[in-house]
Amino acid sequence: MKTNLECIPCLFEQALRTAMMVTQDEQKIKQVQDELGEIIKEISLESTPPMLAKKMYENVALITGKEDPYQELKHKSTLEALALYPSVKEQVSRSIDPLLTAAKFAAIGNVIDFGVNHGYGLLDEINDVLTREFGVFDYGAFKEHLSKANEVLYIGDNAGESVFDRILIEEMGKNVTYVVRGGPVINDVTLKEALQAGIDTVATIISTGTNIPGAVTEFCGSEFNAAFQKSDMVISKGQGNYESLSDEERSIFFLLIVKCNLVAEEIGVQKGELVLKGIN
Amino acid sequence: MKTNLECIPCLFEQALRTAMMVTQDEQKIKQVQDELGEIIKEISLESTPPMLAKKMYENVALITGKEDPYQELKHKSTLEALALYPSVKEQVSRSIDPLLTAAKFAAIGNVIDFGVNHGYGLLDEINDVLTREFGVFDYGAFKEHLSKANEVLYIGDNAGESVFDRILIEEMGKNVTYVVRGGPVINDVTLKEALQAGIDTVATIISTGTNIPGAVTEFCGSEFNAAFQKSDMVISKGQGNYESLSDEERSIFFLLIVKCNLVAEEIGVQKGELVLKGIN
Repeated sequence: MKTNLECIPCLFEQALRTAMMVTQDEQKIKQVQDELGEIIKEISLESTPPMLAKKMYENVALITGKEDPYQELKHKSTLEALALYPSVKEQVSRSIDPLLTAAKFAAIGNVIDFGVNHGYGLLDEINDVLTREFGVFDYGAFKEHLSKANEVLYIGDNAGESVFDRILIEEMGKNVTYVVRGGPVINDVTLKEALQAGIDTVATIISTGTNIPGAVTEFCGSEFNAAFQKSDMVISKGQGNYESLSDEERSIFFLLIVKCNLVAEEIGVQKGELVLKGIN
Repeated sequence: MKTNLECIPCLFEQALRTAMMVTQDEQKIKQVQDELGEIIKEISLESTPPMLAKKMYENVALITGKEDPYQELKHKSTLEALALYPSVKEQVSRSIDPLLTAAKFAAIGNVIDFGVNHGYGLLDEINDVLTREFGVFDYGAFKEHLSKANEVLYIGDNAGESVFDRILIEEMGKNVTYVVRGGPVINDVTLKEALQAGIDTVATIISTGTNIPGAVTEFCGSEFNAAFQKSDMVISKGQGNYESLSDEERSIFFLLIVKCNLVAEEIGVQKGELVLKGIN
């Protein structure tokens, strides 16, 4: 998916939120915005939105001196999600179709982003999202692909959400390689938070090899790209990965909550809807 | 009111909307955003938000070659409001307190901005806002000041809205000087749209002498400033004028719909609420 003109005001909004999270120094926050003004000039509308986000976050980190502004929040999100692990496991096992329920929880886990932005509790968010239906739900194809797959590549998105990914991975019962970001960016899961979530007990963890908040294959490392090519099935979590991978030619299943109007329009759903969408 | 760091993402959003209104050329719209990136560096957080908006709109006008991007919309808004004039007049005259009803319609007229942004019809907007209560309603003081005033300075905001201002002016029955912007900016009323709304039949029209979308006295012309000082009563419409005049020392009555969270917080209401607030 290409960068849209609409992404630029949104990027300024995100830069502001992130800078305000790590500093109260108005001059520094203004400097973050001023420097972002420089960065957007270099942005091509041919690049994917996560490439912009990477530059924006690096800028915030540089000016505020905080390499990982979301570190504490990621830790807290994971702890919160881990506390819910037993009850979610029980809900999944009690349900008529445990795989479906696990997939729904994994998608719902993607709401954690909203928590970061809006500050309400994870349980409230989950209860809110549980009432929603999927806007796109290619579950039949998902189940069929999964039944035939040996090696599944599962591309993670946010910290905290990973705990729900773990539950889906446990339910899938396949050999799974779980992909984290190569370095801190926004609240995306890195090796550190994946280990905290216990992903290592259910999957092999690799990284994209870059801190772009989405798996843009062109900039990912060889380990990721080899796994991406050879896996029987790819599951991609979250909007950043959708934006990065939606034009790829291989079969991919996207599992996400849609967080902006542009992506909503492209997928043909409303903002806030759950999506399980298979391509190719 | 000073510029807040939050105003910057909002400014990019407004620049995008305005540029998209006058051109479909992505490169030009991107250029608008790129140049705005330059402009924000020169912005002091000590200036008022309308000063930023002025620079942003001048930038859009320069790049797109359209000096008055909202010209058509302003004309259309005024025509729409004029079509409602007879029924609003009747509602006002039929009501228990015609002055109060006229003031409410004048405040509601300020919703016209939303129409420009969200594209729904004026009548729908008015019906929606009519159900709302005022968040601040200094009507007692307003009525008392008005009863003692001979010369009222009425600072207009949006085109279209002016038709409702006219109804309130008619109801007030005072000598009124109506202030328009000195040049086109956003959908703000200029002499052209004020004449279209028939304001000249009920008031003397003067201008701020500048195209800042708010009456920042420091940059307004001498005609405005003389009238501002000598009037017995000042009525200021809309958020741009509130942002510009809220720190003035003279008595002013602000009549507006609150359109952003910062102004809402400062006034102590929710975004979208109607406000009739007297200061000093």
